[in-house]
Amino acid sequence: MSQLDVVLLGHTPDPEKAVAMAARLCYSDAGIGELLDQLDQAEVTRLVRSLRDMGHLSPLEHASFSFGISGVSRALSHQLVRHRIASFSQKSQRYVSESRFDFVVPSSISRNAEALRLFIGGMREIQGWYNAMVDLGIPKEDARYVLPNACTTQLVCTFNARSLLNFFTLRCCSRAQSEIRELARRMLGLVKAVAPAVFEKAGPPCVSEGRCREGRMSCGGFGGPLDGADEPGMHNGPGS
Amino acid sequence: MSQLDVVLLGHTPDPEKAVAMAARLCYSDAGIGELLDQLDQAEVTRLVRSLRDMGHLSPLEHASFSFGISGVSRALSHQLVRHRIASFSQKSQRYVSESRFDFVVPSSISRNAEALRLFIGGMREIQGWYNAMVDLGIPKEDARYVLPNACTTQLVCTFNARSLLNFFTLRCCSRAQSEIRELARRMLGLVKAVAPAVFEKAGPPCVSEGRCREGRMSCGGFGGPLDGADEPGMHNGPGS
Amino acid sequence: MSQLDVVLLGHTPDPEKAVAMAARLCYSDAGIGELLDQLDQAEVTRLVRSLRDMGHLSPLEHASFSFGISGVSRALSHQLVRHRIASFSQKSQRYVSESRFDFVVPSSISRNAEALRLFIGGMREIQGWYNAMVDLGIPKEDARYVLPNACTTQLVCTFNARSLLNFFTLRCCSRAQSEIRELARRMLGLVKAVAPAVFEKAGPPCVSEGRCREGRMSCGGFGGPLDGADEPGMHNGPGS
Amino acid sequence: MSQLDVVLLGHTPDPEKAVAMAARLCYSDAGIGELLDQLDQAEVTRLVRSLRDMGHLSPLEHASFSFGISGVSRALSHQLVRHRIASFSQKSQRYVSESRFDFVVPSSISRNAEALRLFIGGMREIQGWYNAMVDLGIPKEDARYVLPNACTTQLVCTFNARSLLNFFTLRCCSRAQSEIRELARRMLGLVKAVAPAVFEKAGPPCVSEGRCREGRMSCGGFGGPLDGADEPGMHNGPGS
Repeated sequence: MSQLDVVLLGHTPDPEKAVAMAARLCYSDAGIGELLDQLDQAEVTRLVRSLRDMGHLSPLEHASFSFGISGVSRALSHQLVRHRIASFSQKSQRYVSESRFDFVVPSSISRNAEALRLFIGGMREIQGWYNAMVDLGIPKEDARYVLPNACTTQLVCTFNARSLLNFFTLRCCSRAQSEIRELARRMLGLVKAVAPAVFEKAGPPCVSEGRCREGRMSCGGFGGPLDGADEPGMHNGPGS
Repeated sequence: MSQLDVVLLGHTPDPEKAVAMAARLCYSDAGIGELLDQLDQAEVTRLVRSLRDMGHLSPLEHASFSFGISGVSRALSHQLVRHRIASFSQKSQRYVSESRFDFVVPSSISRNAEALRLFIGGMREIQGWYNAMVDLGIPKEDARYVLPNACTTQLVCTFNARSLLNFFTLRCCSRAQSEIRELARRMLGLVKAVAPAVFEKAGPPCVSEGRCREGRMSCGGFGGPLDGADEPGMHNGPGS
Repeated sequence: MSQLDVVLLGHTPDPEKAVAMAARLCYSDAGIGELLDQLDQAEVTRLVRSLRDMGHLSPLEHASFSFGISGVSRALSHQLVRHRIASFSQKSQRYVSESRFDFVVPSSISRNAEALRLFIGGMREIQGWYNAMVDLGIPKEDARYVLPNACTTQLVCTFNARSLLNFFTLRCCSRAQSEIRELARRMLGLVKAVAPAVFEKAGPPCVSEGRCREGRMSCGGFGGPLDGADEPGMHNGPGS
Repeated sequence: MSQLDVVLLGHTPDPEKAVAMAARLCYSDAGIGELLDQLDQAEVTRLVRSLRDMGHLSPLEHASFSFGISGVSRALSHQLVRHRIASFSQKSQRYVSESRFDFVVPSSISRNAEALRLFIGGMREIQGWYNAMVDLGIPKEDARYVLPNACTTQLVCTFNARSLLNFFTLRCCSRAQSEIRELARRMLGLVKAVAPAVFEKAGPPCVSEGRCREGRMSCGGFGGPLDGADEPGMHNGPGS
């Protein structure tokens, strides 16, 4: 049973200053060197907040953030790579053997003893079929067709700050699927530490804008219970 | 056991004329109406071929093509959605029940009686676990963690012609995974029928450009055997 | 003196049905053929409105629209090509002679007799310098450095419906520059005729969402006077 | 008369290690921490070269580079912002006064005394018209319609390494317009200093791949004379 792990591998140095300088340049007659000299931290924070609140988000693209993610399922990664304004490198099931695959257990299953027993037993059986097929000469890239969505993967991904804000809007929402919501919550914590003004209001629209467009549904708010998760209606994000 | 099916749902009307007109406009003093009047089919074909051969591909973006795809695995769809200059709508495993899921059998497995027996038996067992977990109250979006990569999905996707050419370069290559290669081959057939000059040379670099950059590997050429599929080296596309 | 002209060159056939079908597929167990059969016009309209109002915009990407635009300035085209989720083919000043260039007169200038006299006289002088430099053997691509922002250009551009909605949000706003605002207004009229449910609420946030984020500024509303156009503060879009 | 200036404002720390690690992760069973530990500089260089030579370019997207550019014309910036996989912040002519604008003189003009006299005189006259119109109450955003393509601008732009390679392929070519070619040459020098293996073969296809697709034209090679610059045929890039 796997644990989600996410680290901030790297980011644009001094990301908020990079954003503030680019924004200031649009409206100033000063040269680039001068602009950099004029910006102290208080002014950077003030400018970044103003951009964010007015929705002038293009300068945020000058700051990018790379994450190392492991212990997540391929159910999650299939959703994650739907974000197109981002870059991904993912561990290949075509080239790396899954002879001892790890897996993610959704919390609704880990809380249900009978379901958990079925699930864990299932994972063991699937491992056996995969290994047997490889022994029969089936290529890894075909044997993997038997592997479950739960099977873990690892990725490196890079987002700019504007695309990350959109990611958090969709994936921190309590309507998002629980595993990717937890990943998004952890990523948000990591970037808030290095770009607090950019991300201080990041999250679902009920947090960032004080409103919700998912009018047909109730939810428990940001981080609240997933009580409507089985609802047949529409939801945020493609949710494949 | 599922069969791949792909249909061309719609496309830009008269796609090659749209491309040729846009290209001609860049280098002409004539108005848009005049340009359209001047372009007969022979001239359209000549211009499109010239753009393609010189690598002036931006006018190709004015033609787009929408496909309805079904009977493909989620192993395939995870690769497909990595193409970022494209639009996707995919059947959701969060919202649609998989109580009677269909599945794709890779050809290396269908040709191996013992592997096939294991595989088909496995699919039946997985179906049982999924159904049992749903009966125990596990939400569909969590029960699906047990479902295999082989499980079928359906999608609508839209690509412009330039992005399609890149798709065919990567996915028609004999180094591509066999299921997505077959999909790419079928999609190429569909668009060749409506935009022959754009797509007549589409395919892997060995076909479109007479060269291969995958120097470390041998292959059987376009459509040839996947003899190197199990090779641990690098390959085209992300191949997740 | 030039007149803006914009025509809808082509678009995805039955664009709202394409959008509705893709949206329906995400939440349905039915096959693609069935889904198409089930969708009558009333249902298409209902689905499209629901997507739009809930902000589930990705299915809108399956519909694209190509425009032929002429009689616009290069001041406008420099702003237009900043929209990155779109495709552009533009008349080249490197390759096409501007020996008899046409130009756009901003309305604030055409309403001011003294400014208009200066402006028209200036255009004539610039034409003379350009022609003289070409006669002296200066390549067109360098002689054009003397040409004004007012100089007209023509373009073909293709946007999908989602990107168009964003374009209208930014460029129909009374804070947008007047020439591109007029273009956006005309483009909106053209697409409303073929995809009314998609575009019926398109426009600046005060129209589409009943709110404005440009809190520091007053304006006359959608289509109202540009009374704040000279304001030194920030504004929507990059406005270069 | 203005001088092009470009500085590297910031970049992903240790960009080649970021790229190499992401590439390695796709084909490895090791964890992210392990992968980072295993990569010494020699291995990083070897991996980056291998990716580049085989055209497996997606890991290059994890490294991004921000440039501060000044002393360039709006003829150049109109071309530059056509690169869509990049982020731009540009000084606004709507909001910043051009009461003392600077300008770029193309080298073909500075080498021709008669053309230069015309050009410099023209710039002075245009400045006078602009100032007079502003004095007559014309808003800056409309008065600027009289300003020339030569008028300087400044920008901050951010590209990832993959998009930069494409930029260099198109814009270092001797068929590119001379001002943007000089900018591209200078940007290439800056990034080569921090990511030498990524960029050591960057440039037009005749340099990076030993071939040219612009078959109809002769040129002097990378950095050679622009002898065909006036040729009416097609060329690389949109060249607007």
